[in-house]
Amino acid sequence: MMRVAILHGAGYVGRKLIEQVLAHPHLELTLVTSRSHDGEPLWKAHSHLRGVTDLTFTSSFVPDVDVVFIAAGHGQGAKAAGEIRDQGYQNLIVDMSADFRLPDAATYEKRYGAPHPRPDLLKDAWYGLPEITGPPPAGTKLIANPGCFASAISLALHPLSKAGLVNPVSVLALTGASGSGAQAKETTHFPSRSGNVRAYKVFDHQHEAEIDRMAPGLTYSFVPASGPWTDGIWGVAQFELTPSDLKKAGISSVRELYEQAYGSSPLIRLWNNQLPELHWSVGSAFTDLGWTQKGSHVAIGFAIDNLLKGAATQAIQNTNLALGFAETTGLV
Amino acid sequence: MMRVAILHGAGYVGRKLIEQVLAHPHLELTLVTSRSHDGEPLWKAHSHLRGVTDLTFTSSFVPDVDVVFIAAGHGQGAKAAGEIRDQGYQNLIVDMSADFRLPDAATYEKRYGAPHPRPDLLKDAWYGLPEITGPPPAGTKLIANPGCFASAISLALHPLSKAGLVNPVSVLALTGASGSGAQAKETTHFPSRSGNVRAYKVFDHQHEAEIDRMAPGLTYSFVPASGPWTDGIWGVAQFELTPSDLKKAGISSVRELYEQAYGSSPLIRLWNNQLPELHWSVGSAFTDLGWTQKGSHVAIGFAIDNLLKGAATQAIQNTNLALGFAETTGLV
Amino acid sequence: MMRVAILHGAGYVGRKLIEQVLAHPHLELTLVTSRSHDGEPLWKAHSHLRGVTDLTFTSSFVPDVDVVFIAAGHGQGAKAAGEIRDQGYQNLIVDMSADFRLPDAATYEKRYGAPHPRPDLLKDAWYGLPEITGPPPAGTKLIANPGCFASAISLALHPLSKAGLVNPVSVLALTGASGSGAQAKETTHFPSRSGNVRAYKVFDHQHEAEIDRMAPGLTYSFVPASGPWTDGIWGVAQFELTPSDLKKAGISSVRELYEQAYGSSPLIRLWNNQLPELHWSVGSAFTDLGWTQKGSHVAIGFAIDNLLKGAATQAIQNTNLALGFAETTGLV
Amino acid sequence: MMRVAILHGAGYVGRKLIEQVLAHPHLELTLVTSRSHDGEPLWKAHSHLRGVTDLTFTSSFVPDVDVVFIAAGHGQGAKAAGEIRDQGYQNLIVDMSADFRLPDAATYEKRYGAPHPRPDLLKDAWYGLPEITGPPPAGTKLIANPGCFASAISLALHPLSKAGLVNPVSVLALTGASGSGAQAKETTHFPSRSGNVRAYKVFDHQHEAEIDRMAPGLTYSFVPASGPWTDGIWGVAQFELTPSDLKKAGISSVRELYEQAYGSSPLIRLWNNQLPELHWSVGSAFTDLGWTQKGSHVAIGFAIDNLLKGAATQAIQNTNLALGFAETTGLV
Repeated sequence: MMRVAILHGAGYVGRKLIEQVLAHPHLELTLVTSRSHDGEPLWKAHSHLRGVTDLTFTSSFVPDVDVVFIAAGHGQGAKAAGEIRDQGYQNLIVDMSADFRLPDAATYEKRYGAPHPRPDLLKDAWYGLPEITGPPPAGTKLIANPGCFASAISLALHPLSKAGLVNPVSVLALTGASGSGAQAKETTHFPSRSGNVRAYKVFDHQHEAEIDRMAPGLTYSFVPASGPWTDGIWGVAQFELTPSDLKKAGISSVRELYEQAYGSSPLIRLWNNQLPELHWSVGSAFTDLGWTQKGSHVAIGFAIDNLLKGAATQAIQNTNLALGFAETTGLV
Repeated sequence: MMRVAILHGAGYVGRKLIEQVLAHPHLELTLVTSRSHDGEPLWKAHSHLRGVTDLTFTSSFVPDVDVVFIAAGHGQGAKAAGEIRDQGYQNLIVDMSADFRLPDAATYEKRYGAPHPRPDLLKDAWYGLPEITGPPPAGTKLIANPGCFASAISLALHPLSKAGLVNPVSVLALTGASGSGAQAKETTHFPSRSGNVRAYKVFDHQHEAEIDRMAPGLTYSFVPASGPWTDGIWGVAQFELTPSDLKKAGISSVRELYEQAYGSSPLIRLWNNQLPELHWSVGSAFTDLGWTQKGSHVAIGFAIDNLLKGAATQAIQNTNLALGFAETTGLV
Repeated sequence: MMRVAILHGAGYVGRKLIEQVLAHPHLELTLVTSRSHDGEPLWKAHSHLRGVTDLTFTSSFVPDVDVVFIAAGHGQGAKAAGEIRDQGYQNLIVDMSADFRLPDAATYEKRYGAPHPRPDLLKDAWYGLPEITGPPPAGTKLIANPGCFASAISLALHPLSKAGLVNPVSVLALTGASGSGAQAKETTHFPSRSGNVRAYKVFDHQHEAEIDRMAPGLTYSFVPASGPWTDGIWGVAQFELTPSDLKKAGISSVRELYEQAYGSSPLIRLWNNQLPELHWSVGSAFTDLGWTQKGSHVAIGFAIDNLLKGAATQAIQNTNLALGFAETTGLV
Repeated sequence: MMRVAILHGAGYVGRKLIEQVLAHPHLELTLVTSRSHDGEPLWKAHSHLRGVTDLTFTSSFVPDVDVVFIAAGHGQGAKAAGEIRDQGYQNLIVDMSADFRLPDAATYEKRYGAPHPRPDLLKDAWYGLPEITGPPPAGTKLIANPGCFASAISLALHPLSKAGLVNPVSVLALTGASGSGAQAKETTHFPSRSGNVRAYKVFDHQHEAEIDRMAPGLTYSFVPASGPWTDGIWGVAQFELTPSDLKKAGISSVRELYEQAYGSSPLIRLWNNQLPELHWSVGSAFTDLGWTQKGSHVAIGFAIDNLLKGAATQAIQNTNLALGFAETTGLV
């Protein structure tokens, strides 16, 4: 059993990580930190865990673990990683924040509007979206876990980028309220959210910087929106595709493109001539990808659980690969 | 046309009052205050009103109106009422806050945990729940509009109190998220509210002080709860009733009790052998009351729109009665 | 007062029409038909109408009215229109079904999979989407009220078509469950609908035939989807637009395009640099249209209430224009 | 590993049983029947199971298993049990239908309005609500799994019955839409269910016959209602309790009563001075029970997942006990 610590474990991503680690056959949860809940049982923050685990939150990290998950917001992730490295912790860190997802400190500052807290650690970071990047190289000790929109959209667009398609792609994706975190906000106020849809950061979402890494060269536009549900991201990418485009790309069909890219990925489900429903992936570690074509019109549909494939189960996937377990261990 | 001002008009009750006044044949909306939206058109706070009215919020009251509605929280209502009285405004005030609902300053302080802001005005206040209290006496210039739970539960329990029934009554009522106001709160955070039910202030809701006035002498217990919807209060009052209880009360049936009490009330709909659904009253000025009996078990079901009968349309009802219009003017 | 009959009035569109007619200053509701509710008060189908109107459903039409609204599904609309014409009714018919929306019987049969029930009446029909088609010509006696998706998307795309823009437009739009009607279906089963999004009829929705009429020559693709709410359509149209495209179209900006098209339409609200929220238009007769541009990416956002602008209030708008009332009478 | 078959496995209870069996360390799912899905993979009915299991539905039962779960509606459960017994299957049956929950065929016929399909099997049936009934006696081969409302309410009322309390208890409980099954119905039509609450079968729910078995002698009234969510039952039992009542019952407090009854039950969580929220138990095998007292007023709050403790996990709990595994195996 590998010993696991979760830092900043009182939020929604922390909650899902706790559940995933408790359910994993080779991981043992030994420590969860939270300043605001220091000394309290985990169920004070996550009521449904009462009777499931007797662990209590602590505010101090002890470095006798094999894996550390950091479930903090941007800015806080690098800070926490730096602190435990300074404390002498040398083993694997999987950071859920945005802090190690971008290639350099300048890009980070531009997107997140503040200097990178620990630029010295950036060179060690591996951006881990396993179905695109593959497993982390041997010796990787710092994994940047992708953003939720970034995971879903990169997986939808990567095959188009790889095939060199040049027609612009329009993406509209909707996310649930858990993506905004456990703190109440105006945008998650029930009367404003229920029965409503709202676009935000149109053409300007910070996850575009990650998508740019995973689908280089592709022209796409992205309209993010919030939908009236708690968990899950659902969206559609639309573009035009002619027989001549296919010929240039050296493929016979959209289906071939996606089957080549993901046919052997155990956590991607492909749906031919069908766009996935949001429900299918909510609560699971799977990414659902489907497509429909009529004449030159193509739609790629995608769905993930924003807190699972968009956070906690992808972290486990990355950890499995880093530690040499089968990729799906504890996930299916 | 009577000229109307709404103070503190940027919240949910303000929104509904604006709509009601705009739709009323004899009322003309001339002024809406909001400190946070001073100088902005009303639709900056209430987007759906764009194109409907060109009024802008102001921060200063001008006393050339015939009716003032105060849509403030407790403590703020009496403060605002005091200020406009001090400014010389002598016409009708309808206050939506809790500040003038209780008979004296001591009861107020006990329930609301702070001294009454303007005890000097208390003696002028009329508690207006028209189907129970009737119209305000001639010359009434200050009407306390009842609380939302208080309106629904008082209407359900008043006939039992009047009949002198002595068996204890158990009340469970659920309210929507708009009852918590327009500010985001932990209890209205979408992920916590959607798909959830939560009891709160069990046996200790502040509206009990109002119910005690409208259903004196009745033994009841009240469990308030919050439900996963935006608008509406729905609940059930259960009690035991034997033939001997009926005989003591001098009535032949539950039906007779409610038909005697409300048979001529134009804004109460009675449902025999049926409990009302929440949907029936949402969006309307009506109170729905129904009953079912089996052996000695009796259930009284009730439903109102918490922002309408529980606030804005009841305020219009009170205003109609105070100004000499038909009770339902502008409401049906 | 003009006398009004509503045929097939027990469904959701019928419900909204009843409310609109009752609220209209120049219309008087005299007759509502429903075979399944014959002889029952309207509130047996529409509970919230109890206490509001004493009308009862009837199963037989009497032609002494000035306007007939037909709130039937496709196939039934033309049948009902034919029957009352055969009965001698000569005044205005506003049909909410799809039956008179397409220019000829062949197109109808292709889209709806059955021969047109009354092709003889097609030549008299006027397709009424007032902000695009203008008022019906004098003497119009049969108005085809547009489909809900068709109304929203046509209004969003018409200015692009008119300007002769040639880049393909990707449309994704989501509709609420009331669009499926009052009968329970698998797709509106609460456990399947709540927290879910589902695309359907991808690139093949029957309303495309209407959009083709209102935005001729435009290349667009349309992905319809169902969302977890009751009322409202919300969507986004995305396309690429370069300075050279603008020049060819003879306009300076997207804003100019939409302000020219709808600046004087009293029931369209334009939002510059902002996409509208679904909530803004739900419950209202307005269409909300907004846009955002970044580089060559353009997003046009649109929102309507599918049962109001997508059905009942558009029918009133058409009726106002046909009868010579101001377009917004009874609507704002 | 014990081999498991699930009959009628295409509905909601079947879905949850499939998930529970797949996650159980000592159970192996070998066969799932469904007439309507015969020959199809399980994910054709339960999309989220694609990639999780390769099993296909079959329409014929092969008796080489150790446990059979029957996930059928009332009438169908006994029929299926009879058929496999007639086929020679002799091992454990856990029936989720109502058919073996009542003590005799006459009570069954009275409650369910039809003769019992297999009264010959009734004498072998064990009603298994483990926290009240304890484990099934050695040799039990037919377990009747309790109803969802019956499970929650029996657990809330049993201690009161056991203590001989005589004051009447008022119960109001609300259930989610999944309790109505996978078939679309008028009561689960999204527009009718969302934002609505509806009481039904007031004082006349069929589960009362089960509650009567688990809380004998207690006077209670039960108002069932449907709420706008998918999974979960939440309710409150209210009653009056004086010091003299406690004395007669030989206990010092409500707390003592519930701690004595359930203090050692691993799947019941007790909440002192607090009523549980619905969310806490949804998705889990736990029953949450809490209480609040003020003066003589007592409220007992309860919450379960209707498809888990109200069906699938309770079936696993019963199976664990019947087969000699620890009660919580596979559940926590």
